[in-house]
Amino acid sequence: MKTYYKKDFPVSEARRYLEPTPAVLLSSLYEDKQNIMTMGWYTILEFTPSLIGCLMSSGNPSFEMIARSKECVINIPTADMIKKITGIGNCSGADTDKFEKFSLTAQAASEVKAPLIKECYANFECRLYDKTLRDKYDFFIFEIVKAHVAVSPKYPETVHYRGDSIFMVSGKNVKEYSAK
Amino acid sequence: MKTYYKKDFPVSEARRYLEPTPAVLLSSLYEDKQNIMTMGWYTILEFTPSLIGCLMSSGNPSFEMIARSKECVINIPTADMIKKITGIGNCSGADTDKFEKFSLTAQAASEVKAPLIKECYANFECRLYDKTLRDKYDFFIFEIVKAHVAVSPKYPETVHYRGDSIFMVSGKNVKEYSAK
Repeated sequence: MKTYYKKDFPVSEARRYLEPTPAVLLSSLYEDKQNIMTMGWYTILEFTPSLIGCLMSSGNPSFEMIARSKECVINIPTADMIKKITGIGNCSGADTDKFEKFSLTAQAASEVKAPLIKECYANFECRLYDKTLRDKYDFFIFEIVKAHVAVSPKYPETVHYRGDSIFMVSGKNVKEYSAK
Repeated sequence: MKTYYKKDFPVSEARRYLEPTPAVLLSSLYEDKQNIMTMGWYTILEFTPSLIGCLMSSGNPSFEMIARSKECVINIPTADMIKKITGIGNCSGADTDKFEKFSLTAQAASEVKAPLIKECYANFECRLYDKTLRDKYDFFIFEIVKAHVAVSPKYPETVHYRGDSIFMVSGKNVKEYSAK
């Protein structure tokens, strides 16, 4: 699999990659167990602090792990990883080591204990910031405390879920004034 | 400008269009004043009821109008409307009638008093559902109570903001199993 050379990236500019909400992989660690889930329902909430609101079904083992560890990593996989993205979304960490099953590499983060997924284009280390809406909506607000982004390409090709097994693939980038 | 023939669409399936979070136009009405704002920070929160969490800067006149009227319409513009999308985002409803300035047509909605934007591909009529995080994060949760979606094309070409005047244009749609 392709690996990326990554550099630190300003956390306040996370929207460049996360505002179009590609399907992302959330990695977590609690006690000795690590896990990954696929997530598509999230939004940037603030630049500084760099806040992101995320919906995580409480039926997912990641919910409890992240509620307890208060940390996770949001990883951006590229379109060529679509089988891993859907495979991870369609099995449970309760009985599967998803890093092993999907041949992904857990790499040490710098600010949190949850692992980065090495094969992803970008990794955003997150700490739980606000759990006010957790119990009512399964909605967590995280602060991105450290970002690692591939140096090249400048924009990754990503997939954006529409439901019913359909993904939209990211297209070209345009400057607003270059539109027809 | 192109106009679309639209039909009712199941509100529980709004994710088909909103999960990839295209830049949308929020229309509102309070007393005799109507307004439009551009929005990029939002996420689906639930299928049924059909909930969507939206970030609206409190500096925007739409914030007060929607906080008071407790209603709005989320309209999906297509990529060919990019100049209107950015123009609407770069001026204030405090001193501008944006429907007039951007040659858009206000059309009566069926469940709310806020107007639909006729020229948009889809219109989602919304009622305020939860304002718990409004004052702390400018975050509103709306329920989509009625949806109108163009019959053709099945998927619109949309634009997805990345900051710094760059938009990602939606690409092709793929079934998850057809990926490389």
